[in-house]
Amino acid sequence: MFEDRLAQRMQGVQTSPVRELLKLAQRPDIISFAGGLPDPELIDTEGLAEATAYATGEQARHAWQYGTTEGFMPLREQIVRLMATRGASVTPAELLVTTGSQQGIDLIGRVMLDPGDVVVVERPTYLAALQVFGLYQARVEGIEGDAEGMRTDLLEAFLERERPKMIYLITNFSNPTGATLSLERRRHLLELAARHGVMVIEDDPYGELVFDAQASLPPLWALADEVPGAKPWTVYLSSLSKIVAPGLRVAWMALPEWLYGKVTIAKQATDLHTSTLSQATAAHYLASDRLHARLPHMRATYREKAGVLMSALRSRLGGAITFEEPRGGMFVWARFAGGVDASVLAPRAIASGVMFLPGHSFFAGEPDHARVRLSYSLPDRAGIEEGVRRLASVMD
Amino acid sequence: MFEDRLAQRMQGVQTSPVRELLKLAQRPDIISFAGGLPDPELIDTEGLAEATAYATGEQARHAWQYGTTEGFMPLREQIVRLMATRGASVTPAELLVTTGSQQGIDLIGRVMLDPGDVVVVERPTYLAALQVFGLYQARVEGIEGDAEGMRTDLLEAFLERERPKMIYLITNFSNPTGATLSLERRRHLLELAARHGVMVIEDDPYGELVFDAQASLPPLWALADEVPGAKPWTVYLSSLSKIVAPGLRVAWMALPEWLYGKVTIAKQATDLHTSTLSQATAAHYLASDRLHARLPHMRATYREKAGVLMSALRSRLGGAITFEEPRGGMFVWARFAGGVDASVLAPRAIASGVMFLPGHSFFAGEPDHARVRLSYSLPDRAGIEEGVRRLASVMD
Repeated sequence: MFEDRLAQRMQGVQTSPVRELLKLAQRPDIISFAGGLPDPELIDTEGLAEATAYATGEQARHAWQYGTTEGFMPLREQIVRLMATRGASVTPAELLVTTGSQQGIDLIGRVMLDPGDVVVVERPTYLAALQVFGLYQARVEGIEGDAEGMRTDLLEAFLERERPKMIYLITNFSNPTGATLSLERRRHLLELAARHGVMVIEDDPYGELVFDAQASLPPLWALADEVPGAKPWTVYLSSLSKIVAPGLRVAWMALPEWLYGKVTIAKQATDLHTSTLSQATAAHYLASDRLHARLPHMRATYREKAGVLMSALRSRLGGAITFEEPRGGMFVWARFAGGVDASVLAPRAIASGVMFLPGHSFFAGEPDHARVRLSYSLPDRAGIEEGVRRLASVMD
Repeated sequence: MFEDRLAQRMQGVQTSPVRELLKLAQRPDIISFAGGLPDPELIDTEGLAEATAYATGEQARHAWQYGTTEGFMPLREQIVRLMATRGASVTPAELLVTTGSQQGIDLIGRVMLDPGDVVVVERPTYLAALQVFGLYQARVEGIEGDAEGMRTDLLEAFLERERPKMIYLITNFSNPTGATLSLERRRHLLELAARHGVMVIEDDPYGELVFDAQASLPPLWALADEVPGAKPWTVYLSSLSKIVAPGLRVAWMALPEWLYGKVTIAKQATDLHTSTLSQATAAHYLASDRLHARLPHMRATYREKAGVLMSALRSRLGGAITFEEPRGGMFVWARFAGGVDASVLAPRAIASGVMFLPGHSFFAGEPDHARVRLSYSLPDRAGIEEGVRRLASVMD
């Protein structure tokens, strides 16, 4: 029976705990620190409804019909503008619109990975990326990180010994750690990529959600222009999911020329193209400049909510939990003291009406069972405080 | 260099000629018989704009946020209703919403296929399905068809010799042939699937576009209830692309229970979920019953346009081209007489302002170079006549 081979292929590939918890999070009585869902108050429903009305009115001819696999050109032109505000120069011909950044990760895996290939990730890293690399039967190696992101000195030592096919990392306010790769390490990473001939897949969904806009760092895609030989090895992924609306499923990849056609063919086989309704809506929304007008408020809101969460954790849980302060993004990466296992605590917390994500799923290799990812993005301020109160009651 | 292995994997996988031609089809002076694009006049822009307004108004909370991988529940409930009109009983728990049917084919390939596995298709068949099976390095075997679809007697003989993992076919108004699998062969196919333990992937994007609604046949998914042991081997794919709007990228799969979770995990890794904006729009549109009110006009329009194309071919090309009369769908599958090679003719036709799809890409194995697929769905009646006039001038 082919059930055996099927079982072998799906081995170790489980449904994401985030996705499973999201289902529970729909229970109205649960306060959820689990998902990375944007604050509903920050979604510009008015501006998006207007953009959709435009897409289905003046742009109806495009919005309802088949489009090109590469993406709706007016949207790619808007992404060029958005990338320029991040300090990155890109042309529409280098951009491929994807159905969420998840698809970008998957397409790269599909085109590049053979079973047994080595993929380097931060340790810990985004669990759905681990899931994709697992599906392609890659061997995933985690390089430890700290508050400045992946330890590129450890990466350098690793590259002396092994020949990975790619390095995947979230450069800004990483999921789950919240850490940002420092400028010095960005340059070092690019030098290593160029020297060893290793792809660097930079995933950047959270970069705009920087608490202090002065602290933004240029993407690897931009810095690669200054590092000889680095550009052909860099791929940049970003998304509208965290800053506009995840329901659009609109994201993009910037790709070196040698890879662009191959990834486009893979996308064609996967879903022909991303929803033109979503793409035309996103194009009009970006053209309206409402996003950039709203970003300061978005950043201030998440900064404030992060503060509410950290204050509540300190006052209610005290020494029972430790964490680094995030400087952007959506997550506090914390650690329970006293040998508490987060995955044992999680179902009891749910029974008490609060949900978080046990940290173990984010580790390639040996996990730290005391780790927990707490997202402050979805609940409101009162909800954050009540959620921590419930968490404290479970821990008593 | 891993370029070598990359080249090996992408070998034989080319960008679809349909997708490449679609780009050319955007030239306003070209009359295109190439794509399977719905007639823009048949897209209910008013009803869809209304549905989108509802989705981004009352349903905004859902439309802009993350959703479950399985699909937006109100949409799955509407698909249950739609499937009932096709004589098929299905529950929301058996339905997975996909980003176009292309994704359904890809997910099945991803979950089921190992390199070297045998996949049986009609000969000829949908070229993007061939592309997907090629990407998974399957060995594709074509079984000849006729006006009643795949020759199940030949399939039976094949199954005595070989052990394919799946059979893929378009049961109604197949792409490219326009043929429909007869009721007798449907039953025979299901008996063979049950006896030999082979998956049957039924792709049904065109079934509603039957010229004579009385002639509709039940899907394999429904007939499998009457064939002992067949149900766990059947998968049904359908889509809103041909009957509502391709730009939504909303399609669905009905799956047996043992496969549902595995395909859902694969979809999760691929794009998390389909655009909730598109799903909420589709749900409201289907609930409005505008689709069923419009289907008779849609069928009549395509029937009439098929007639215009066939009359023009007969009067202008006479014996230079032969074809079967379609009874639904979007395609006339024709054959040039006198040793004309369609792929040699195609660029000359484009130079004269008319485009069609050479048939060779639709064949697993040895192609018939005289074949051509002509779609009457996109151009209007005058365009169809003018297109055939241009084609005749090229052939002179």
